[in-house]
Amino acid sequence: MFESAELGQSIPDAEYAKLEPKLRADLLDAQYALLQSKAFPMIILVNGVDGAGKGETVNLLTEWMDPRHIQSHAFGAKLPEEMGRPEMWRFWRALPPKGKIGVLFGNWYTSPIVDRVQGRTKDAALAADLVRVRRFEKLLTDDGAVLVKLWFHLSKSAQRKRLKELESSARTRWRVTPNDWKAFKSYSKYAKISERVLRETSTGEAPWIVIEGTDPNYRSITAGKTVLAALRARLEAAAGASARASKRAAKSNHTVIRTVDTSKILKDLPFVERLSKAKYTKQIEVLQGQLNLLSRSPKMKKHAVVVVMEGMDAAGKGGAIRRITQALDARVYDIVPIAAPTEEERAQPYLWRFWRHLPRHGRFLIFDRSWYGRVLVERVEGYASPDAWMRAYNEINDFEVQLQEAGIVLVKLWLAVTKDEQLKRFKEREATKFKQFKITPDDWRNRKKWDDYVAAAGDMIDRTSTAIAPWKIVEANDKHLARVRVIETIIARMKEAF
Amino acid sequence: MFESAELGQSIPDAEYAKLEPKLRADLLDAQYALLQSKAFPMIILVNGVDGAGKGETVNLLTEWMDPRHIQSHAFGAKLPEEMGRPEMWRFWRALPPKGKIGVLFGNWYTSPIVDRVQGRTKDAALAADLVRVRRFEKLLTDDGAVLVKLWFHLSKSAQRKRLKELESSARTRWRVTPNDWKAFKSYSKYAKISERVLRETSTGEAPWIVIEGTDPNYRSITAGKTVLAALRARLEAAAGASARASKRAAKSNHTVIRTVDTSKILKDLPFVERLSKAKYTKQIEVLQGQLNLLSRSPKMKKHAVVVVMEGMDAAGKGGAIRRITQALDARVYDIVPIAAPTEEERAQPYLWRFWRHLPRHGRFLIFDRSWYGRVLVERVEGYASPDAWMRAYNEINDFEVQLQEAGIVLVKLWLAVTKDEQLKRFKEREATKFKQFKITPDDWRNRKKWDDYVAAAGDMIDRTSTAIAPWKIVEANDKHLARVRVIETIIARMKEAF
Repeated sequence: MFESAELGQSIPDAEYAKLEPKLRADLLDAQYALLQSKAFPMIILVNGVDGAGKGETVNLLTEWMDPRHIQSHAFGAKLPEEMGRPEMWRFWRALPPKGKIGVLFGNWYTSPIVDRVQGRTKDAALAADLVRVRRFEKLLTDDGAVLVKLWFHLSKSAQRKRLKELESSARTRWRVTPNDWKAFKSYSKYAKISERVLRETSTGEAPWIVIEGTDPNYRSITAGKTVLAALRARLEAAAGASARASKRAAKSNHTVIRTVDTSKILKDLPFVERLSKAKYTKQIEVLQGQLNLLSRSPKMKKHAVVVVMEGMDAAGKGGAIRRITQALDARVYDIVPIAAPTEEERAQPYLWRFWRHLPRHGRFLIFDRSWYGRVLVERVEGYASPDAWMRAYNEINDFEVQLQEAGIVLVKLWLAVTKDEQLKRFKEREATKFKQFKITPDDWRNRKKWDDYVAAAGDMIDRTSTAIAPWKIVEANDKHLARVRVIETIIARMKEAF
Repeated sequence: MFESAELGQSIPDAEYAKLEPKLRADLLDAQYALLQSKAFPMIILVNGVDGAGKGETVNLLTEWMDPRHIQSHAFGAKLPEEMGRPEMWRFWRALPPKGKIGVLFGNWYTSPIVDRVQGRTKDAALAADLVRVRRFEKLLTDDGAVLVKLWFHLSKSAQRKRLKELESSARTRWRVTPNDWKAFKSYSKYAKISERVLRETSTGEAPWIVIEGTDPNYRSITAGKTVLAALRARLEAAAGASARASKRAAKSNHTVIRTVDTSKILKDLPFVERLSKAKYTKQIEVLQGQLNLLSRSPKMKKHAVVVVMEGMDAAGKGGAIRRITQALDARVYDIVPIAAPTEEERAQPYLWRFWRHLPRHGRFLIFDRSWYGRVLVERVEGYASPDAWMRAYNEINDFEVQLQEAGIVLVKLWLAVTKDEQLKRFKEREATKFKQFKITPDDWRNRKKWDDYVAAAGDMIDRTSTAIAPWKIVEANDKHLARVRVIETIIARMKEAF
């Protein structure tokens, strides 16, 4: 893979001087077209051998294009707030919004490669890392991102020469650190492992481009042209695609072929159990005591708890949430109500707005509605294309695996009520002045689509009840019973994890 | 101050049952009026004696109002990312946006009081803390926020009784922790210091309301009514004020009475020094080497560097920034270009968008334009009212004091060019294809207001050149010279601080 990047390719200064102005102008035009379309983000990964011109290329791209719309991020050792959070959390935070360009330096390829080179991981762990990387990149490209992966290469002798040259002048000596020489010593191992990584992560949507780093002119022009070609291709595709998409949307009838009737999952609930107020008052206090003890357990140093509260309108989500938080120290939890996304959130992949809230170890986070909106309201109301919400089942499962790996105890609760019970609660809300805010025309509109919601929820529970993150369906016609079950479930999930 | 809150006030259950529904409905109405106006945020501080019902009141407010638009934050010990950042950083991050309500628990009053009670600080330090708090609250209320400060009080005997009661039942025992008894032991000291703090921070715009916490009915109704009254008063004032403001704006001619001609600061620059390309190439590499060494100094563990780059259009800010970053490891710096604020930023006080970016210790942050926009472009173009930008001088000075206290080395650079040199550069940009993006109709428009900008910049340099954060005016007609001066200044400021 690297052989083609050890050919000694170069571009003479005179030719460079001719090529450069045109390339700069074209890059700027493409950057502005991207900015105006706001259709997708461009992500440029910069990796490779030290001394092969990674930093210089990043500087050059920023100089060639409008620096206000290109943002570079370099990742080093993990920051305190990045520890105790899923591996990919810091990369999610650095993704460029639609219309902009992000250059990521020391990105999600760095630890898999470095850990393997330094012997901290075995081949199997590397393979698992690469699966995660491929799935993450698929999410990005499925969402429309242009992903350009540049690998800057130097032969071993070229790297040695480059380091020596820098060291030979008093003026540039500071650019070479002891770490650079240390890295040089494992050159061959590094090359071997990198080659495997590049091979296994060169996909159709996001292939690796290996660039020979010896000659600055060649390196700069090649990097610039690669970025330009990728951006132009995607801009043209986007223009074509949006025309095709609107044609397709006009035809689509949002039907899903279903082999099993998953809506039965919710339709066949018995709804017979009841809990008296007296018993409830006693039980809930005991359970809250247990939950409080667990929340103060030393085990929480390695864990966080994320509660997903879903259910039909008026199923009692708010009341259940308050019974949870009553048991917790106000300093250890947050509640995130999910409503319409903000401008910053709309410019990112769907899951971004959930990633940004993920708690550190030791904390509780309660989502009042969640990422499942994608396969519930967005599916039923047609806000998301069938493509997008079908894809979401996989993306969500990937996401939840990462939460679990990071020690997050995920508790997914569906509060189920019958259609009659919902009607009763809607009317009650309308009749009580201070409850009227809880009932809006939207609620009545959603109610008309009851069956669609039941079907979507059935599919959701069927497809996203995994071993590591099962759904708990809570019968909630009886509010007392529901609140007790909710806290019991959280306690059980925490005990399992501890 | 606390005597009036030891009278044993209470509300019988029957009366509470009558008062509560009306209060809830009124609170909801006011909350929705706030939400629709989006005119200002409401900040509720909840402080006081443990066991006096702070947590219960927060839960109640969330239950009474629409929980999607009221967000509570509790602050405990500092989080890793909060260390090595200015004291107020974490509170800025938790401010509610316009239209919403934020309940802050364990807020900016907690450490000043607790540190003094536990003897970690003396009276003088407490006094300084309170000055900072008052100035911060002034910024918030000047910006339009309603600030309601609730202090929940219990007499010593009532607190003892409350703790004993909770402990006596197996079901509620978990609510009392050893810390609660420890705190109880310093009751008198705590009361004495709190009383001083309340007295010194009860201002006209944000007085403290002391609420007796013994009787839950009394406590809840009083807290609810206080919040309601403050919100209503401000909503009415806002309606009146916007009418008055538009009248005033129509009359205002944005004139500032000036006793000294501060525009001379920039007009009288000599612009004679020059630096040849050969000398520049040598000098810049040496300076970059020095800057690189400083950036890797162990002293950086207690410091961060914030560079503010300001200057007329085409003064060479971008080029100078690149010469700085060339000297730095890509993993230790960020560049933040300041353009139009995002939706989330517009819903916050002006300085919020800068607070959110502040670097942790060890890092560099370069602002390409900055918070000085308030007294430059926003003043000249009339985007900010004279009131707002006049106030900004003080707010900015306060802000910079806090940066300095947190170990941040602040380097403020004004790149000065002459009007002729700007014209030359504008024309050059228009003539070069890949530089055309750097020149827009805005630039030509701004140029017509050259004298206004010079006047505004002169005032700015005059009023915000403080001992801890002086402006450095860099003559930038010669780009080489400017770049050398910029790096020299950063090096000098870092050496001073180390």
